[in-house]
Amino acid sequence: KLFSPQSLALSVQGKRAPQFLRTARRQEKSCWKRSGYVQERTRWHLGTGSERRPPSIHRIKASSLKLRFCTNETQATREKFVKKLQGLGFDISVDEVTAPAPAACRVLKERSLRPHLLVHDDVVPEFAEIDKANPNCVVIGDAADNFSYANLNEAFRVLIGLENPVLISLGRGRYYKETDGLKLDVGAYMKALEYACDIQAEVVGKPAKMFFESALAELGVQPQQAIMIGDDIVNDVGGAQQCGMRALQVRTGKYRPSDENHPQVKPDAYVNNLAEAVELLLQELRE
Amino acid sequence: KLFSPQSLALSVQGKRAPQFLRTARRQEKSCWKRSGYVQERTRWHLGTGSERRPPSIHRIKASSLKLRFCTNETQATREKFVKKLQGLGFDISVDEVTAPAPAACRVLKERSLRPHLLVHDDVVPEFAEIDKANPNCVVIGDAADNFSYANLNEAFRVLIGLENPVLISLGRGRYYKETDGLKLDVGAYMKALEYACDIQAEVVGKPAKMFFESALAELGVQPQQAIMIGDDIVNDVGGAQQCGMRALQVRTGKYRPSDENHPQVKPDAYVNNLAEAVELLLQELRE
Repeated sequence: KLFSPQSLALSVQGKRAPQFLRTARRQEKSCWKRSGYVQERTRWHLGTGSERRPPSIHRIKASSLKLRFCTNETQATREKFVKKLQGLGFDISVDEVTAPAPAACRVLKERSLRPHLLVHDDVVPEFAEIDKANPNCVVIGDAADNFSYANLNEAFRVLIGLENPVLISLGRGRYYKETDGLKLDVGAYMKALEYACDIQAEVVGKPAKMFFESALAELGVQPQQAIMIGDDIVNDVGGAQQCGMRALQVRTGKYRPSDENHPQVKPDAYVNNLAEAVELLLQELRE
Repeated sequence: KLFSPQSLALSVQGKRAPQFLRTARRQEKSCWKRSGYVQERTRWHLGTGSERRPPSIHRIKASSLKLRFCTNETQATREKFVKKLQGLGFDISVDEVTAPAPAACRVLKERSLRPHLLVHDDVVPEFAEIDKANPNCVVIGDAADNFSYANLNEAFRVLIGLENPVLISLGRGRYYKETDGLKLDVGAYMKALEYACDIQAEVVGKPAKMFFESALAELGVQPQQAIMIGDDIVNDVGGAQQCGMRALQVRTGKYRPSDENHPQVKPDAYVNNLAEAVELLLQELRE
C-alpha cells in the first residue's frame, strides 16, 4: 500500500470557477454538453452526462476518508465561497473549508494583534469578531479594486509607524485570470509593502506551514495520515510536503508539464485527474 | 589637495521643496527670517538676510567649476521642475539638470523600445518624441494617483505578454514625505511588478551607474574629475562612487547620524552643509 490515508485535503479555488463556467458556456458549450467538465478541469469536475454532483467528492464522502477543502480564496467569506460552489453542484459546507482569513484570525487572537485590513470588502465579515481599534499590524488579502494608491499608502503608514511592523498576508499569489484578463494577486502588493518597510510578511495561506497545520487540526489527524491533492506544484504539493503530508499532483488546471522537472518539489505521485486520484486511494482502502 | 575637481554634481529634489517651504513659512517664520534656510536644509539653501539667491550655487557658478543638478524627480517634466526651483530663488536652467526621464528616453531609443508608460501625468511630455505604439516594454515612474489597481494590471498585462519582459524604472525609492503624509514611491510598485512577472527592473535614476554616466557625459569630464554632493548615503554617495566619482555627504536633509556607520558606503568626506562643501572646494581651487 502506497498511501493508506485516513484523510484527504483537496485544493479548491473560487476565482476560477465562474470564469471557467462562463468561458465553457460561451465557447465550449457543445464540448461541455458532450463530456461535462471532467476532461477540462478536474477541480470543477461536475460529472458526466446529466449528473450534476461531482462524483469524486461524492465517492470520498461515501468512504471512510475524512475530507477537507483547502482554498486560498480571499475575495469572499467562506459562506459566499461555499454558496458559489454549491451552486456549481459541489457537495460542500462551510465547516469543511480551510481558508486563509480564519487562519489569520487565529493568529491575531493568539498574539493580541489588532489589524488594519487591506482586503476585499466581501471578506471583511470574516474579521467581525476581531478588535480593529488602534491597529498594531496590517492584514493584506486579495483586495482587488481596494488596492488603490490611497489605500496602499494608508496601510503603509500604519506599518511604518509601528516599532515592530507586522504584515500578515493571506497569500503570496502573483496573479490570476478573470474573464476580463489577468489581475495582480495579493503577493505583488505584499512585496510592495515589504520593500517600502524593509520587512518580511507572514503568509497564512498556502503554501505556509501554518495553513496546513490548521487543516490537519481540523481533520484531527497526523500529517503522515493525510494526503493533499492539488494542481499547484508549489502551493499545494510543496506546502503540504513541508508539513509532513504526502501530496499528489493532478495533471489538470494549473499543472504544466515543466512542473515534473521542478527543482525543489517532487509530488509523491502524479494522477491524470481527481477521479483517478480518488480511484487510487479508494482501491487502497479496499485492499 | 584632496579633491581638485573640475566639476560638481549636486543632488536636488523637487518633492520636498514646497513642503519644506510651507512648513517653514507656517511654523518657523521667525527662525527663517533670522537665518534663512541655511541651517535647516542645505538643499533649499536660500541665503541669509534679504538675499534670495542661493549663495552657494552662485559661488559655484562664479568659479571655474562646471555644475550639474542631479535629481530623481519623476513627477514633473524638467521644465516644470526647474520653474519651481527658480520660483524658490535658485539660479538653475533646464539644460543643467540630469533627470531619470531623459535618461530613460536615451535607453528606449538606443534599444528600439516602445514603452507603455505608468508615470505621473506631468512627466508624460518628456516622452513626447518616443514611439509608444504596440509597446514592447514598460516604463514606471512615481505615478502617484495613477498607481490605481486598473493601471497596475494594465502595465502587468503588457509585461507578462512579452517574450522578454523589459521593465524600466525611473527610480527605486521606497517612500517620501508630502504635506499630507508619507507616500509609497516608485520602488514599491517596481517590486510588485518584478514579483508578479518574475523579472528584474532596470533602474535609470540614482543610484544607477547609467544615471551618473549621463551626468558625466553632459559635464564632459571623467569620473575622477567630478565630485557629487548629496544628502542620501545610498542614492547620491554610493551611486556616484560606484561610477568612479568621489562624493561628499552633507549632514542635512535625509542625512541620519547612523549613515556614518553604513555597512557598504563611506563618503570621501562629510560636510555640515552645502556652504561648507563649496567653501572647501573653492579653497582648493585657489591654492
